[in-house]
Amino acid sequence: MDSRIVGYGELQRFTRRILECLGYPPAHADVTATVLVEADARGMASHGVARLDFYEKNIKGGFADPKAEPTVVRETPVAVVIDGNNGVGPVVSEFAMARCIEKAEKVGAGFAAVRNSNHFGMAGLWAEKAVARDQMGMAFTNTRICSVPTFGSQRILGTNPICVAIPSAGKVPFLLDMATTTVAHGKVEVYERRDKDMPLGWCVDEKGIGMTDTKDFQKLFWSKSPDGGHLFLGGEGEDLGGHKGFGLGLLVDLLCAGLSMGRWSLHTFSGKGSGIAHFFGAIRLDNFGDPQEIKEHVEGILDEVRNSHKAEGQDRIFIHGEREAEARVKSLKDGIELDEATAELLAKYAERFKVKPL
Amino acid sequence: MDSRIVGYGELQRFTRRILECLGYPPAHADVTATVLVEADARGMASHGVARLDFYEKNIKGGFADPKAEPTVVRETPVAVVIDGNNGVGPVVSEFAMARCIEKAEKVGAGFAAVRNSNHFGMAGLWAEKAVARDQMGMAFTNTRICSVPTFGSQRILGTNPICVAIPSAGKVPFLLDMATTTVAHGKVEVYERRDKDMPLGWCVDEKGIGMTDTKDFQKLFWSKSPDGGHLFLGGEGEDLGGHKGFGLGLLVDLLCAGLSMGRWSLHTFSGKGSGIAHFFGAIRLDNFGDPQEIKEHVEGILDEVRNSHKAEGQDRIFIHGEREAEARVKSLKDGIELDEATAELLAKYAERFKVKPL
Repeated sequence: MDSRIVGYGELQRFTRRILECLGYPPAHADVTATVLVEADARGMASHGVARLDFYEKNIKGGFADPKAEPTVVRETPVAVVIDGNNGVGPVVSEFAMARCIEKAEKVGAGFAAVRNSNHFGMAGLWAEKAVARDQMGMAFTNTRICSVPTFGSQRILGTNPICVAIPSAGKVPFLLDMATTTVAHGKVEVYERRDKDMPLGWCVDEKGIGMTDTKDFQKLFWSKSPDGGHLFLGGEGEDLGGHKGFGLGLLVDLLCAGLSMGRWSLHTFSGKGSGIAHFFGAIRLDNFGDPQEIKEHVEGILDEVRNSHKAEGQDRIFIHGEREAEARVKSLKDGIELDEATAELLAKYAERFKVKPL
Repeated sequence: MDSRIVGYGELQRFTRRILECLGYPPAHADVTATVLVEADARGMASHGVARLDFYEKNIKGGFADPKAEPTVVRETPVAVVIDGNNGVGPVVSEFAMARCIEKAEKVGAGFAAVRNSNHFGMAGLWAEKAVARDQMGMAFTNTRICSVPTFGSQRILGTNPICVAIPSAGKVPFLLDMATTTVAHGKVEVYERRDKDMPLGWCVDEKGIGMTDTKDFQKLFWSKSPDGGHLFLGGEGEDLGGHKGFGLGLLVDLLCAGLSMGRWSLHTFSGKGSGIAHFFGAIRLDNFGDPQEIKEHVEGILDEVRNSHKAEGQDRIFIHGEREAEARVKSLKDGIELDEATAELLAKYAERFKVKPL
């Protein structure tokens, strides 16, 4: 696959400029560009600048208003409910997470339930903002429908990620950032491009029965049928715990849409605004003891996990967040690698808006 | 299988009496008996009165002191750190969860990190205590080691359950109460008794490679080898998301042992006290809006999930907590069904302590 290597700063400035051309005010373009480029820098291309296209479609479809500012609709010492007013996800999320952190600074913990927002990028970026202040952070979001509940066949829930960051005394915090579905849809597309069957446990057909043919699944997924879709972690039925993954996905929708009185996944992208809902939280470590001691204790646990016996053929146990942090270090040093399709997308934007190409 | 039907009250009183004979003060025996009998009433026999045997072993092994009272070692407006002083899990947990709820009443949210406790029974019983006060509740615990991380072979983590309860306007709250491992060990034992192979995705051998023979696995699991054990939700490797389940299990240990400065799963049941650690939380619904409106919105979401299309051959999508709530209603009406082994265990206790048998 052809690719282009681009510097972090260069890519951020270019993306910011394109977002401005798409109608984002400069401050909104800046935070959104950083969120997209950070994902690319961490090797999460699925949440990177390739999303510019989707972000533009959200504006054109009336789902996102790049100029809108979020408003606080309810506030208590430990919590805030925010209406995103259909603004862009990163702007709404930065606003919401900053309030969680402020509340945690003041009273020990802070939570934000957010309705009427949009795609917020990598969940990890929001949760980890708390870490620098010696707080644990959390971020959840519902998404466009793609997944079916245990014993169901209809797409009614999203990938509904769970993200929790816990500070450690090591180089990087513990940063769990996971879709509650077995895989995100991008993985099916990779298998399709490679002409490869996917494993059972990823997806079901219109009858809610496991399927492995990626081409057939793609046809179904993009058809008008409301049935067939992704499975939650644990797969089909209950034998491998699919009901647990489904429970986690549903929990995310109850936290995001339930507490904010917003739309749950089934009703996103129908009507004005996408209606995406989030939930954020921050809890100060020093509620529980000296932060440095806790961080050293956490790192001690992580070290024992790293040093535990490896499975045959394996030489490393990865702590969550390590791979992405290592990719980021490499990207800052060597530049960010864009795949051919993304490089082409950016070149088209440059031409269209008469912006100097990368 | 032979079984005995016993009334809830009768079983609670009997269990309380046996616990008193084992050295529990009356108040400690009472809360512990209720916790065990509640699990049986809900069809969770794995956490029911059959555990009396394990609870007795914990006393004899020096892991649990039935007379110990928990103490607060640190407190802030939103959080408390509790030392269980090796007391019994239900006593320590009732103390901790009550403090979370009190704090939530006062300031909106409350959290408790607990070290040096013991087995606390069904996690759901603690999380749901918040629901009656229009709060969401959460409960986590580490456990004796049984599970291996992704790409590992060594048993270093427990079943590490996650439990979150969210109030709804329906008959029962949303109550997700799940081991983060694919299955708990009791399920392997059921398959062994039925002379049945288990599916891939439950367990790995000493080399960290998936295995299906339950008899071989049982031998390995109870041997002195530190390797081989249960897999986390998502199974072996990363194809079906095993790293996500592992991340959830590790998260539970960081919340419980990390924040309480307690022992993580690897070091439980070694030395004085089992060292089991918990984490609890409660957040008031009215932080986010009118509790009744939120509960109706939550129930509306759950109803749409229930009414979504069913997979072929299925006629119901279960919301988490429904099955257990329905079993409880039946148990209160018709009595609790004990299996033969449990009935025998109780008969032996009755004989040994000269207590009137059931």
